[in-house]
Amino acid sequence: MCPLAGRDTSAPVSKASTKPPSGTRDFLPTEVLRRRHVIEVVQRVYEAHGFAPLETPAIENLSTLLGKYGEEGDQLMYRLLHRRDALSRPLAAAHAEGRVPAEHELADQGLRYDLTVPLARVVAQYGELPKFFKRYQIQPVWRADRPGKGRFREFFQCDVDITGTTSLLAEAEVCSAVATVLRELGFQEFEIRVNHRELLRAMIRAAGIDAALEGTALVAVDKLDKIGRDGVLAELAQRGISAGQGSQLLEILAPPAPPAGDEQADNAGVLARLRAQVDERGRAAVDSLTELLELCGQNPAGVHLKVSPELARGLGYYTGPIFEIAVADLQGSLGGGGRYDELVGMFGKAQVPAVGFSLGLERILVVMAERDMYPALDHGPDLMLCWLGVPPVELVRVATQLRARGLAVELFPEPAKLGKQLAYADADGVKARFAAIIGTKELDAGVITVKHLSSGAQETIALAELDRARLESLAG
Amino acid sequence: MCPLAGRDTSAPVSKASTKPPSGTRDFLPTEVLRRRHVIEVVQRVYEAHGFAPLETPAIENLSTLLGKYGEEGDQLMYRLLHRRDALSRPLAAAHAEGRVPAEHELADQGLRYDLTVPLARVVAQYGELPKFFKRYQIQPVWRADRPGKGRFREFFQCDVDITGTTSLLAEAEVCSAVATVLRELGFQEFEIRVNHRELLRAMIRAAGIDAALEGTALVAVDKLDKIGRDGVLAELAQRGISAGQGSQLLEILAPPAPPAGDEQADNAGVLARLRAQVDERGRAAVDSLTELLELCGQNPAGVHLKVSPELARGLGYYTGPIFEIAVADLQGSLGGGGRYDELVGMFGKAQVPAVGFSLGLERILVVMAERDMYPALDHGPDLMLCWLGVPPVELVRVATQLRARGLAVELFPEPAKLGKQLAYADADGVKARFAAIIGTKELDAGVITVKHLSSGAQETIALAELDRARLESLAG
Repeated sequence: MCPLAGRDTSAPVSKASTKPPSGTRDFLPTEVLRRRHVIEVVQRVYEAHGFAPLETPAIENLSTLLGKYGEEGDQLMYRLLHRRDALSRPLAAAHAEGRVPAEHELADQGLRYDLTVPLARVVAQYGELPKFFKRYQIQPVWRADRPGKGRFREFFQCDVDITGTTSLLAEAEVCSAVATVLRELGFQEFEIRVNHRELLRAMIRAAGIDAALEGTALVAVDKLDKIGRDGVLAELAQRGISAGQGSQLLEILAPPAPPAGDEQADNAGVLARLRAQVDERGRAAVDSLTELLELCGQNPAGVHLKVSPELARGLGYYTGPIFEIAVADLQGSLGGGGRYDELVGMFGKAQVPAVGFSLGLERILVVMAERDMYPALDHGPDLMLCWLGVPPVELVRVATQLRARGLAVELFPEPAKLGKQLAYADADGVKARFAAIIGTKELDAGVITVKHLSSGAQETIALAELDRARLESLAG
Repeated sequence: MCPLAGRDTSAPVSKASTKPPSGTRDFLPTEVLRRRHVIEVVQRVYEAHGFAPLETPAIENLSTLLGKYGEEGDQLMYRLLHRRDALSRPLAAAHAEGRVPAEHELADQGLRYDLTVPLARVVAQYGELPKFFKRYQIQPVWRADRPGKGRFREFFQCDVDITGTTSLLAEAEVCSAVATVLRELGFQEFEIRVNHRELLRAMIRAAGIDAALEGTALVAVDKLDKIGRDGVLAELAQRGISAGQGSQLLEILAPPAPPAGDEQADNAGVLARLRAQVDERGRAAVDSLTELLELCGQNPAGVHLKVSPELARGLGYYTGPIFEIAVADLQGSLGGGGRYDELVGMFGKAQVPAVGFSLGLERILVVMAERDMYPALDHGPDLMLCWLGVPPVELVRVATQLRARGLAVELFPEPAKLGKQLAYADADGVKARFAAIIGTKELDAGVITVKHLSSGAQETIALAELDRARLESLAG
């Protein structure tokens, strides 16, 4: 087939699947427009909150990624296989030593797992960044997770973060940004669940659980939504926490009958109850949450905030307030975030406090599709040029003229009957708004016949006068 | 540090490099805006040519990617290491059999190497696409190549392709699209070099070289730009082509003294010379190029086209006309493309003819930066809110009000002296256009003091009246 390929042409034709790999997707034009619509809203709102755009590479060194997300994160990370000598050397060495090669010998780079660790690396690397770096980042991340509804292996995150301050104004800003995005997209009922890592630790202490078991206890608690109270109790027991301590922890985190009433009263009530159960460090966390609720009372996030003592968040790097957005009809969240004051320092440089919030693009899209929340989005050209009996070079000339006037113009690329060309102009996946016909008579007279496809309205116009205004007047 | 991490906290703090991996880059806000500026022009022009957007996953099955690009492509491809059992099983099996594991046992997915093969897979997969699928795609691709000027391991391609037709109108359309992009970005002097794979084969036959050596001969010829005539002759000899045949091939492809004259005469002259030297299939290719030149004479590509018999293009899948864009000051090209009528059929389904053109985003950016071709691009917020002696909750209230009026508002996140806040608003990397000051007196009176940072103009305005129009009038 091709002169440069090293391919053995005697081999049978490949019958490889043409589906994208499991957990990944192709986005045909209509879907791209929907994604773009949401991304544009996110971008506009984030910029209105004073965030500036950052982009980082898909590929990161494993030394950057590993050990930041907890055990599960390390397991779900995509690693890039070494090439050539870098691969053959360790394979040969292991063979010579009579042992199985270790995973870390086969790869030292991977695909980014989130946008937070790359941001922390960037903050550690570039001295020229502003003291308060307010950045947003909308890029894909990769996790080799089991695919499910709204859960993919390649998916976009839309992050806002503020580094360089421990002020709760930063928490309030990121909450305002994501709440405004969701409202502008048309979401009305959503909860921003909020908790605090120090409060969680205090609750664990209050349940009498040893500090050494804190991490493992939280892994279990984090599954409350998925496996229920009995499941969590069983898993806590498995993890070496006594039944009494487990029950007591659940009693504090998620008492069976939460107090009813209006939302503000609920939050205040929950915080008052917790304040009475935890030690001084726990009470400091309660104070932080109280202050955050007050600040957000003046921005679009306030009415959505719900204090949720059982919220744990899986990622390892959080140190302060943590957030997660819940909507009805969707297991899992539309986004999450929190404060991570020690992550930048993990790169062995100065400690820089930080807080951020991440929206999951695909979850948002799934819910918007189910609820029919998209505006009408078109990708068809303004005009499809159809032609009959004229030399193709004339078709190119007309297309060039009309494009120079700012019109999106497609041309039928082959000679064909006019009916076929017109039908194609209106076909699914093409959907030009107008079709224009150039025949020999039109060409000689310097005119063009234009048809508005949805109404059928048709007019013959001097070619020199055809522009957007003229098209709009024909559309009526 | 964090309750959920499995990290051993007794381990020394990681001193991992915070640079991005070799051949990849971080894009700080100013650079993101430059990239976005170029991408927006590309997108607008491609849409004006009737192309619709497509996006495909970064991850593809190796069965999709391998054998499509030629030997070098297969070698430069990033492969994703198997995980868990899928990795340990083949490693253990090889160990048990006393052999070194093979690369293909360790990975069956990789990162996309270009946007053309994914498009071909999409065309083979989705029956609902229009017969003539005009798609554009602007996404990153990955090649483990040696990094160099404008050459990265992760880089963006901006592709336009038309599938479903062998009409040369399709070639003319993709050439028009990329030429218009470059002109709208401000490029004036650039060449779109054009050749034809069938003409190349005919020239090789005319030099008396065996058809079996066609592929290897072209790999050598493709390096003419880089290693010169003597280098190519030496490499042809190494590849088993006699000195006489090698000289004759170079004589046909690139005669030492090309005829001078104006561009059209050059193209016509070169085609006439070739026509006299090749066989009937070669003459058919010359006819195609002649017709293509005529069509492009009516679009923005025409004045840039230059028939270049020595152009080979490295990628394996081309079958007809091939293109490459050259500018002064840049080794390598700004983009390239061609016809590939057999690629879709390589997926074992129906054959679908196709032609496309790809612009390299980073090459364009490198040249635009060197030539200072960017317009002024700003990412600072409209307004930075500074505050003194007022409760932070009031600051949030004012920010929320102003954002609701469409302004991009940042707030200074910590209590600080006013001078420090104002200096920060104007600092590099922040560069708000205006600073606003809220003190206790302003708060009580319902006013706000606004300062235009570049002129120093300052005014105290009723908070209820502060909007974009008011800001612009202060800016004068």
